[in-house]
Amino acid sequence: MGAHTVTAFDEDLQEIEGLVRDMVSLARSMVDEATQSLIVPDSALAQRVVSEDAVMDSLQRRLDDRAITLIGKRQPMAQDLRAIVGAIRMAGDLERIGDLAKNIAKRVDAVGQSTMPRELARSIEDMAELVLEQVQGVIEEYSARSPEGLVRLRDEDELIDVRYTSVFRELLTYMMEDARNITACTHLLFCAKNLERIGDHVTNIAENAYYVLTGEQLPVHRPKQDETGVPVPAA
Amino acid sequence: MGAHTVTAFDEDLQEIEGLVRDMVSLARSMVDEATQSLIVPDSALAQRVVSEDAVMDSLQRRLDDRAITLIGKRQPMAQDLRAIVGAIRMAGDLERIGDLAKNIAKRVDAVGQSTMPRELARSIEDMAELVLEQVQGVIEEYSARSPEGLVRLRDEDELIDVRYTSVFRELLTYMMEDARNITACTHLLFCAKNLERIGDHVTNIAENAYYVLTGEQLPVHRPKQDETGVPVPAA
Repeated sequence: MGAHTVTAFDEDLQEIEGLVRDMVSLARSMVDEATQSLIVPDSALAQRVVSEDAVMDSLQRRLDDRAITLIGKRQPMAQDLRAIVGAIRMAGDLERIGDLAKNIAKRVDAVGQSTMPRELARSIEDMAELVLEQVQGVIEEYSARSPEGLVRLRDEDELIDVRYTSVFRELLTYMMEDARNITACTHLLFCAKNLERIGDHVTNIAENAYYVLTGEQLPVHRPKQDETGVPVPAA
Repeated sequence: MGAHTVTAFDEDLQEIEGLVRDMVSLARSMVDEATQSLIVPDSALAQRVVSEDAVMDSLQRRLDDRAITLIGKRQPMAQDLRAIVGAIRMAGDLERIGDLAKNIAKRVDAVGQSTMPRELARSIEDMAELVLEQVQGVIEEYSARSPEGLVRLRDEDELIDVRYTSVFRELLTYMMEDARNITACTHLLFCAKNLERIGDHVTNIAENAYYVLTGEQLPVHRPKQDETGVPVPAA
Protein backbone atom coordinates (compact mmCIF):
# COMPACT_ATOMS: atom_id res chain seq x y z
CA MET A 1 0.00 0.00 0.00
CA GLY A 2 1.59 3.33 -1.08
CA ALA A 3 2.26 6.26 1.23
CA HIS A 4 -0.39 8.29 -0.59
CA THR A 5 -3.10 5.76 0.19
CA VAL A 6 -2.18 5.66 3.86
CA THR A 7 -2.26 9.42 4.08
CA ALA A 8 -5.68 9.59 2.43
CA PHE A 9 -6.96 6.97 4.85
CA ASP A 10 -5.53 8.85 7.82
CA GLU A 11 -7.18 12.04 6.64
CA ASP A 12 -10.53 10.30 6.32
CA LEU A 13 -10.11 8.83 9.78
CA GLN A 14 -9.14 12.19 11.24
CA GLU A 15 -12.27 13.71 9.77
CA ILE A 16 -14.35 11.00 11.48
CA GLU A 17 -12.58 11.54 14.78
CA GLY A 18 -13.19 15.28 14.39
CA LEU A 19 -16.91 14.53 14.12
CA VAL A 20 -16.71 12.45 17.33
CA ARG A 21 -15.12 15.45 19.09
CA ASP A 22 -17.85 17.77 17.76
CA MET A 23 -20.46 15.38 19.13
CA VAL A 24 -18.70 15.32 22.52
CA SER A 25 -18.70 19.10 22.75
CA LEU A 26 -22.35 19.30 21.76
CA ALA A 27 -23.23 16.54 24.26
CA ARG A 28 -21.50 18.52 27.02
CA SER A 29 -23.37 21.74 26.20
CA MET A 30 -26.68 19.91 26.00
CA VAL A 31 -26.24 18.18 29.38
CA ASP A 32 -25.08 21.42 31.02
CA GLU A 33 -27.90 23.51 29.54
CA ALA A 34 -30.55 20.88 30.28
CA THR A 35 -29.51 20.80 33.95
CA GLN A 36 -29.46 24.60 34.18
CA SER A 37 -32.85 24.87 32.46
CA LEU A 38 -34.28 22.50 35.06
CA ILE A 39 -32.81 24.22 38.09
CA VAL A 40 -33.40 27.90 37.20
CA PRO A 41 -36.04 26.95 35.69
CA ASP A 42 -35.65 28.35 32.15
CA SER A 43 -38.08 27.23 29.42
CA ALA A 44 -36.25 29.08 26.64
CA LEU A 45 -32.98 27.35 27.46
CA ALA A 46 -34.83 24.02 27.59
CA GLN A 47 -36.22 24.72 24.13
CA ARG A 48 -32.71 25.36 22.87
CA VAL A 49 -31.57 21.95 24.09
CA VAL A 50 -34.48 20.32 22.26
CA SER A 51 -33.45 22.03 19.02
CA GLU A 52 -29.78 21.09 19.48
CA ASP A 53 -30.77 17.45 19.45
CA ALA A 54 -31.51 17.74 15.72
CA VAL A 55 -27.93 18.97 15.20
CA MET A 56 -26.66 15.98 17.15
CA ASP A 57 -28.69 13.60 14.99
CA SER A 58 -27.32 15.12 11.81
CA LEU A 59 -23.72 14.88 13.10
CA GLN A 60 -24.30 11.19 13.75
CA ARG A 61 -25.72 10.62 10.27
CA ARG A 62 -22.71 12.37 8.72
CA LEU A 63 -20.30 10.31 10.78
CA ASP A 64 -22.07 7.05 9.93
CA ASP A 65 -22.06 7.86 6.23
CA ARG A 66 -18.35 8.73 6.21
CA ALA A 67 -17.43 5.68 8.25
CA ILE A 68 -19.38 3.20 6.11
CA THR A 69 -18.04 4.74 2.92
CA LEU A 70 -14.51 4.49 4.27
CA ILE A 71 -14.90 0.81 5.19
CA GLY A 72 -16.27 -0.01 1.75
CA LYS A 73 -13.63 2.05 -0.07
CA ARG A 74 -10.48 0.99 1.77
CA GLN A 75 -11.28 -2.40 3.34
CA PRO A 76 -9.20 -1.54 6.41
CA MET A 77 -7.89 -4.32 8.61
CA ALA A 78 -7.36 -4.77 12.36
CA GLN A 79 -6.51 -1.50 14.16
CA ASP A 80 -7.89 0.74 11.40
CA LEU A 81 -11.17 -1.16 11.16
CA ARG A 82 -11.48 -1.08 14.94
CA ALA A 83 -11.01 2.69 14.92
CA ILE A 84 -13.80 3.21 12.39
CA VAL A 85 -16.25 0.79 13.98
CA GLY A 86 -15.35 2.26 17.37
CA ALA A 87 -16.20 5.75 16.10
CA ILE A 88 -19.61 4.51 14.85
CA ARG A 89 -20.36 3.03 18.27
CA MET A 90 -19.15 6.08 20.17
CA ALA A 91 -21.34 8.24 17.96
CA GLY A 92 -24.30 6.01 18.85
CA ASP A 93 -23.70 6.60 22.55
CA LEU A 94 -23.19 10.34 22.08
CA GLU A 95 -26.44 10.56 20.16
CA ARG A 96 -28.19 8.79 23.06
CA ILE A 97 -26.62 11.26 25.50
CA GLY A 98 -28.12 14.07 23.41
CA ASP A 99 -31.52 12.32 23.55
CA LEU A 100 -31.32 12.01 27.32
CA ALA A 101 -30.39 15.70 27.69
CA LYS A 102 -33.35 16.54 25.46
CA ASN A 103 -35.63 14.39 27.62
CA ILE A 104 -34.50 16.31 30.71
CA ALA A 105 -35.18 19.62 28.94
CA LYS A 106 -38.65 18.43 27.87
CA ARG A 107 -39.62 17.93 31.52
CA VAL A 108 -38.75 21.48 32.58
CA ASP A 109 -42.29 22.78 32.13
CA ALA A 110 -43.83 19.72 33.80
CA VAL A 111 -41.66 20.21 36.90
CA GLY A 112 -43.18 23.67 37.10
CA GLN A 113 -42.17 27.13 38.15
CA SER A 114 -42.03 26.57 41.90
CA THR A 115 -38.57 27.10 43.35
CA MET A 116 -36.69 23.89 43.95
CA PRO A 117 -35.43 23.40 47.53
CA ARG A 118 -31.81 24.63 47.58
CA GLU A 119 -30.54 21.31 48.91
CA LEU A 120 -32.17 19.33 46.10
CA ALA A 121 -30.89 21.73 43.42
CA ARG A 122 -27.39 21.32 44.87
CA SER A 123 -27.63 17.50 44.71
CA ILE A 124 -28.80 17.54 41.10
CA GLU A 125 -26.10 20.05 40.13
CA ASP A 126 -23.41 17.93 41.82
CA MET A 127 -24.58 14.90 39.90
CA ALA A 128 -24.62 16.81 36.60
CA GLU A 129 -21.13 18.18 37.28
CA LEU A 130 -19.74 14.68 37.74
CA VAL A 131 -21.47 13.55 34.55
CA LEU A 132 -19.94 16.47 32.62
CA GLU A 133 -16.48 15.65 33.96
CA GLN A 134 -16.93 12.06 32.80
CA VAL A 135 -18.04 13.09 29.30
CA GLN A 136 -15.03 15.38 28.98
CA GLY A 137 -12.70 12.84 30.57
CA VAL A 138 -13.53 10.03 28.19
CA ILE A 139 -12.59 11.99 25.10
CA GLU A 140 -9.41 13.28 26.76
CA GLU A 141 -8.26 9.78 27.72
CA TYR A 142 -9.08 8.54 24.25
CA SER A 143 -7.22 11.41 22.56
CA ALA A 144 -4.26 10.79 24.90
CA ARG A 145 -4.41 7.10 23.85
CA SER A 146 -4.50 6.02 27.48
CA PRO A 147 -6.17 2.65 28.15
CA GLU A 148 -5.36 2.97 31.89
CA GLY A 149 -7.09 6.35 31.99
CA LEU A 150 -10.16 4.79 30.36
CA VAL A 151 -10.32 1.99 32.94
CA ARG A 152 -10.05 4.50 35.80
CA LEU A 153 -12.74 6.65 34.21
CA ARG A 154 -15.08 3.72 33.75
CA ASP A 155 -14.72 2.79 37.39
CA GLU A 156 -15.57 6.36 38.39
CA ASP A 157 -19.06 5.88 36.99
CA GLU A 158 -19.80 4.36 40.37
CA LEU A 159 -19.58 7.85 41.89
CA ILE A 160 -22.46 8.95 39.65
CA ASP A 161 -24.51 5.96 40.74
CA VAL A 162 -23.94 6.86 44.39
CA ARG A 163 -25.12 10.45 43.74
CA TYR A 164 -28.13 9.16 41.85
CA THR A 165 -29.17 6.90 44.72
CA SER A 166 -28.92 9.83 47.07
CA VAL A 167 -31.02 12.11 44.80
CA PHE A 168 -33.57 9.30 44.40
CA ARG A 169 -33.98 8.99 48.18
CA GLU A 170 -34.13 12.72 48.64
CA LEU A 171 -36.96 12.89 46.10
CA LEU A 172 -38.87 10.03 47.77
CA THR A 173 -38.63 11.92 51.06
CA TYR A 174 -40.14 15.06 49.52
CA MET A 175 -42.93 12.97 48.02
CA MET A 176 -43.71 11.27 51.31
CA GLU A 177 -43.69 14.58 53.19
CA ASP A 178 -46.32 16.20 51.05
CA ALA A 179 -48.48 14.64 48.32
CA ARG A 180 -48.48 17.98 46.48
CA ASN A 181 -44.79 17.38 45.67
CA ILE A 182 -45.45 14.07 43.96
CA THR A 183 -46.00 15.21 40.38
CA ALA A 184 -42.96 17.50 40.21
CA CYS A 185 -40.80 14.96 42.03
CA THR A 186 -41.67 12.09 39.68
CA HIS A 187 -40.49 14.23 36.76
CA LEU A 188 -37.31 15.05 38.67
CA LEU A 189 -36.83 11.33 39.32
CA PHE A 190 -36.81 10.73 35.58
CA CYS A 191 -34.38 13.61 35.09
CA ALA A 192 -31.99 12.19 37.70
CA LYS A 193 -32.32 8.76 36.13
CA ASN A 194 -31.45 10.29 32.76
CA LEU A 195 -28.26 11.79 34.20
CA GLU A 196 -27.38 8.39 35.63
CA ARG A 197 -27.99 6.80 32.22
CA ILE A 198 -25.74 9.40 30.59
CA GLY A 199 -23.04 8.06 32.92
CA ASP A 200 -23.74 4.55 31.61
CA HIS A 201 -23.24 5.76 28.04
CA VAL A 202 -19.91 7.31 29.06
CA THR A 203 -19.01 3.85 30.37
CA ASN A 204 -19.90 2.34 26.99
CA ILE A 205 -17.76 4.96 25.26
CA ALA A 206 -14.83 4.17 27.56
CA GLU A 207 -15.20 0.44 26.83
CA ASN A 208 -15.30 1.08 23.10
CA ALA A 209 -12.34 3.45 23.21
CA TYR A 210 -10.41 0.83 25.19
CA TYR A 211 -11.18 -1.76 22.54
CA VAL A 212 -10.04 0.58 19.76
CA LEU A 213 -6.74 1.27 21.53
CA THR A 214 -5.91 -2.24 22.71
CA GLY A 215 -7.91 -4.68 20.56
CA GLU A 216 -9.15 -6.24 23.79
CA GLN A 217 -12.56 -6.12 25.44
CA LEU A 218 -12.94 -4.77 28.93
CA PRO A 219 -15.26 -7.09 30.90
CA VAL A 220 -18.83 -5.94 30.18
CA HIS A 221 -20.07 -5.99 33.75
CA ARG A 222 -19.23 -3.33 36.26
CA PRO A 223 -19.69 -3.71 40.05
CA LYS A 224 -23.12 -2.10 40.21
CA GLN A 225 -25.54 0.30 38.65
CA ASP A 226 -28.85 1.53 39.98
CA GLU A 227 -28.91 0.76 43.70
CA THR A 228 -32.30 2.33 44.33
CA GLY A 229 -33.82 -1.14 44.68
CA VAL A 230 -32.44 -1.19 48.23
CA PRO A 231 -35.37 -0.60 50.61
CA VAL A 232 -36.03 3.00 51.58
CA PRO A 233 -37.30 3.82 55.07
CA ALA A 234 -41.00 4.80 55.01
CA ALA A 235 -41.77 8.43 55.87
CA MET B 1 -19.43 -9.80 -10.81
CA GLY B 2 -19.95 -13.55 -11.19
CA ALA B 3 -23.05 -15.48 -10.08
CA HIS B 4 -20.96 -17.20 -7.42
CA THR B 5 -20.04 -13.92 -5.76
CA VAL B 6 -23.66 -12.78 -5.69
CA THR B 7 -24.79 -16.04 -4.12
CA ALA B 8 -22.09 -15.95 -1.48
CA PHE B 9 -23.07 -12.37 -0.65
CA ASP B 10 -26.74 -13.34 -0.42
CA GLU B 11 -25.88 -16.19 1.92
CA ASP B 12 -23.86 -13.88 4.15
CA LEU B 13 -26.71 -11.38 4.19
CA GLN B 14 -29.25 -14.10 5.00
CA GLU B 15 -27.14 -15.18 7.92
CA ILE B 16 -27.14 -11.60 9.21
CA GLU B 17 -30.90 -11.31 8.77
CA GLY B 18 -31.27 -14.64 10.59
CA LEU B 19 -29.42 -13.09 13.53
CA VAL B 20 -31.80 -10.12 13.45
CA ARG B 21 -34.75 -12.53 13.66
CA ASP B 22 -33.13 -14.39 16.57
CA MET B 23 -32.71 -11.09 18.37
CA VAL B 24 -36.37 -10.22 17.73
CA SER B 25 -37.56 -13.53 19.23
CA LEU B 26 -35.33 -13.11 22.24
CA ALA B 27 -36.50 -9.51 22.68
CA ARG B 28 -40.11 -10.68 22.66
CA SER B 29 -39.50 -13.38 25.29
CA MET B 30 -37.58 -10.98 27.47
CA VAL B 31 -40.29 -8.30 27.39
CA ASP B 32 -43.02 -10.85 28.02
CA GLU B 33 -41.17 -12.56 30.89
CA ALA B 34 -40.12 -9.26 32.45
CA THR B 35 -43.73 -8.08 32.53
CA GLN B 36 -44.95 -11.39 33.97
CA SER B 37 -42.20 -11.42 36.60
CA LEU B 38 -43.31 -7.95 37.70
CA ILE B 39 -47.00 -8.74 37.89
CA VAL B 40 -46.95 -12.19 39.54
CA PRO B 41 -44.33 -11.25 41.12
CA ASP B 42 -41.72 -13.91 40.31
CA SER B 43 -38.07 -13.30 41.27
CA ALA B 44 -36.80 -16.45 39.55
CA LEU B 45 -38.35 -15.44 36.23
CA ALA B 46 -36.89 -11.95 36.68
CA GLN B 47 -33.47 -13.50 37.20
CA ARG B 48 -33.88 -15.45 33.99
CA VAL B 49 -34.51 -12.24 32.04
CA VAL B 50 -31.35 -10.73 33.51
CA SER B 51 -29.31 -13.72 32.32
CA GLU B 52 -30.90 -13.64 28.85
CA ASP B 53 -29.54 -10.15 28.37
CA ALA B 54 -26.03 -11.61 28.10
CA VAL B 55 -27.27 -13.82 25.25
CA MET B 56 -28.72 -10.75 23.55
CA ASP B 57 -25.40 -8.92 23.86
CA SER B 58 -23.51 -11.81 22.33
CA LEU B 59 -25.97 -12.05 19.41
CA GLN B 60 -25.38 -8.37 18.74
CA ARG B 61 -21.61 -8.77 18.82
CA ARG B 62 -21.81 -11.69 16.38
CA LEU B 63 -24.05 -9.72 14.06
CA ASP B 64 -21.78 -6.68 14.18
CA ASP B 65 -18.70 -8.77 13.43
CA ARG B 66 -20.32 -10.51 10.46
CA ALA B 67 -21.71 -7.28 9.09
CA ILE B 68 -18.44 -5.35 9.30
CA THR B 69 -16.51 -8.25 7.79
CA LEU B 70 -19.02 -8.44 4.95
CA ILE B 71 -18.72 -4.72 4.18
CA GLY B 72 -14.93 -4.93 4.15
CA LYS B 73 -14.87 -8.10 2.07
CA ARG B 74 -17.44 -7.28 -0.61
CA GLN B 75 -17.64 -3.47 -0.71
CA PRO B 76 -21.37 -3.63 -1.38
CA MET B 77 -23.14 -0.66 -2.97
CA ALA B 78 -26.56 0.98 -2.58
CA GLN B 79 -29.33 -1.49 -1.63
CA ASP B 80 -26.91 -4.17 -0.32
CA LEU B 81 -24.93 -1.71 1.78
CA ARG B 82 -28.20 -0.29 3.13
CA ALA B 83 -29.35 -3.78 4.14
CA ILE B 84 -26.15 -4.47 6.10
CA VAL B 85 -25.99 -1.09 7.80
CA GLY B 86 -29.73 -1.37 8.47
CA ALA B 87 -29.16 -4.73 10.19
CA ILE B 88 -26.41 -3.21 12.40
CA ARG B 89 -28.77 -0.44 13.43
CA MET B 90 -31.73 -2.75 14.05
CA ALA B 91 -29.48 -4.95 16.19
CA GLY B 92 -28.55 -1.86 18.23
CA ASP B 93 -32.22 -1.15 18.93
CA LEU B 94 -32.96 -4.78 19.74
CA GLU B 95 -30.06 -4.86 22.17
CA ARG B 96 -31.49 -1.76 23.85
CA ILE B 97 -34.91 -3.46 24.07
CA GLY B 98 -33.20 -6.36 25.87
CA ASP B 99 -31.56 -3.88 28.26
CA LEU B 100 -34.89 -2.26 29.02
CA ALA B 101 -36.55 -5.63 29.67
CA LYS B 102 -33.64 -6.47 31.98
CA ASN B 103 -34.11 -3.16 33.79
CA ILE B 104 -37.78 -4.00 34.38
CA ALA B 105 -36.80 -7.44 35.72
CA LYS B 106 -34.20 -5.90 38.04
CA ARG B 107 -36.91 -3.83 39.72
CA VAL B 108 -39.11 -6.81 40.58
CA ASP B 109 -37.69 -7.23 44.09
CA ALA B 110 -37.76 -3.50 44.75
CA VAL B 111 -41.47 -3.32 43.90
CA GLY B 112 -41.95 -5.95 46.60
CA GLN B 113 -44.19 -8.89 47.29
CA SER B 114 -47.41 -7.01 48.01
CA THR B 115 -50.16 -7.86 45.55
CA MET B 116 -50.58 -5.28 42.84
CA PRO B 117 -54.11 -3.81 42.55
CA ARG B 118 -55.88 -5.79 39.81
CA GLU B 119 -56.70 -2.68 37.83
CA LEU B 120 -53.07 -1.55 37.74
CA ALA B 121 -51.81 -5.02 36.74
CA ARG B 122 -54.36 -5.00 33.90
CA SER B 123 -53.13 -1.61 32.64
CA ILE B 124 -49.49 -2.68 32.67
CA GLU B 125 -50.33 -5.98 30.93
CA ASP B 126 -52.31 -4.15 28.26
CA MET B 127 -49.38 -1.88 27.63
CA ALA B 128 -46.94 -4.79 27.45
CA GLU B 129 -49.23 -6.65 25.05
CA LEU B 130 -49.28 -3.72 22.66
CA VAL B 131 -45.51 -3.45 22.88
CA LEU B 132 -45.14 -7.16 22.06
CA GLU B 133 -47.45 -6.81 19.07
CA GLN B 134 -45.32 -3.93 17.82
CA VAL B 135 -42.06 -5.86 18.20
CA GLN B 136 -43.53 -8.81 16.30
CA GLY B 137 -45.19 -6.55 13.73
CA VAL B 138 -42.03 -4.70 12.77
CA ILE B 139 -40.14 -7.86 11.80
CA GLU B 140 -43.18 -9.19 9.92
CA GLU B 141 -43.57 -6.03 7.87
CA TYR B 142 -39.85 -5.98 7.16
CA SER B 143 -39.82 -9.65 6.12
CA ALA B 144 -42.87 -9.00 3.92
CA ARG B 145 -40.92 -6.06 2.39
CA SER B 146 -43.84 -3.72 3.10
CA PRO B 147 -42.92 -0.05 3.51
CA GLU B 148 -46.62 0.85 3.94
CA GLY B 149 -46.90 -1.67 6.75
CA LEU B 150 -43.88 -0.09 8.44
CA VAL B 151 -45.38 3.40 8.26
CA ARG B 152 -48.66 2.15 9.75
CA LEU B 153 -46.78 0.34 12.48
CA ARG B 154 -44.71 3.37 13.34
CA ASP B 155 -47.84 5.46 13.67
CA GLU B 156 -49.33 2.88 16.04
CA ASP B 157 -46.59 3.66 18.57
CA GLU B 158 -48.91 6.48 19.59
CA LEU B 159 -51.24 3.87 21.13
CA ILE B 160 -48.43 2.78 23.46
CA ASP B 161 -47.83 6.38 24.46
CA VAL B 162 -51.51 6.79 25.31
CA ARG B 163 -51.43 3.68 27.51
CA TYR B 164 -48.25 4.88 29.17
CA THR B 165 -49.79 8.22 30.04
CA SER B 166 -52.74 6.44 31.59
CA VAL B 167 -50.51 4.09 33.66
CA PHE B 168 -48.43 7.11 34.75
CA ARG B 169 -51.53 8.90 36.03
CA GLU B 170 -52.87 5.77 37.72
CA LEU B 171 -49.56 5.41 39.56
CA LEU B 172 -49.55 9.06 40.65
CA THR B 173 -53.03 8.54 42.06
CA TYR B 174 -51.91 5.57 44.17
CA MET B 175 -48.96 7.57 45.44
CA MET B 176 -51.13 10.52 46.39
CA GLU B 177 -53.66 8.28 48.14
CA ASP B 178 -51.15 6.72 50.49
CA ALA B 179 -47.50 7.65 51.05
CA ARG B 180 -46.71 3.99 51.78
CA ASN B 181 -47.30 3.25 48.08
CA ILE B 182 -44.67 5.75 46.93
CA THR B 183 -41.57 3.55 46.84
CA ALA B 184 -43.19 0.67 44.96
CA CYS B 185 -44.99 3.04 42.60
CA THR B 186 -41.83 4.95 41.66
CA HIS B 187 -40.26 1.64 40.60
CA LEU B 188 -43.40 0.80 38.61
CA LEU B 189 -43.20 4.24 36.98
CA PHE B 190 -39.74 3.38 35.69
CA CYS B 191 -40.99 0.00 34.48
CA ALA B 192 -43.86 1.62 32.57
CA LYS B 193 -41.46 4.19 31.14
CA ASN B 194 -39.19 1.33 29.99
CA LEU B 195 -42.10 -0.27 28.13
CA GLU B 196 -42.82 3.06 26.51
CA ARG B 197 -39.17 3.35 25.49
CA ILE B 198 -39.26 -0.13 24.01
CA GLY B 199 -42.02 1.24 21.78
CA ASP B 200 -39.68 4.06 20.73
CA HIS B 201 -37.03 1.52 19.74
CA VAL B 202 -39.61 -0.33 17.65
CA THR B 203 -40.23 3.00 15.94
CA ASN B 204 -36.51 3.32 15.22
CA ILE B 205 -36.46 -0.21 13.81
CA ALA B 206 -39.45 0.60 11.58
CA GLU B 207 -37.69 3.74 10.33
CA ASN B 208 -34.52 1.81 9.59
CA ALA B 209 -36.37 -1.00 7.87
CA TYR B 210 -38.19 1.58 5.75
CA TYR B 211 -34.85 3.09 4.74
CA VAL B 212 -33.44 -0.32 3.83
CA LEU B 213 -36.47 -1.12 1.65
CA THR B 214 -36.93 2.24 -0.05
CA GLY B 215 -33.62 4.11 0.20
CA GLU B 216 -35.60 7.02 1.62
CA GLN B 217 -35.77 8.41 5.14
CA LEU B 218 -39.07 8.59 6.95
CA PRO B 219 -39.31 12.00 8.64
CA VAL B 220 -37.57 11.68 12.05
CA HIS B 221 -40.23 13.34 14.15
CA ARG B 222 -43.49 11.70 15.09
CA PRO B 223 -46.55 13.55 16.41
CA LYS B 224 -45.77 13.05 20.10
CA GLN B 225 -44.03 10.92 22.70
CA ASP B 226 -44.28 11.19 26.44
CA GLU B 227 -47.38 13.27 27.24
CA THR B 228 -47.05 12.96 31.00
CA GLY B 229 -45.85 16.56 31.13
CA VAL B 230 -49.53 17.59 30.91
CA PRO B 231 -50.61 18.69 34.40
CA VAL B 232 -52.19 16.03 36.61
CA PRO B 233 -54.96 17.02 39.06
CA ALA B 234 -53.71 17.08 42.66
CA ALA B 235 -55.09 14.40 45.00
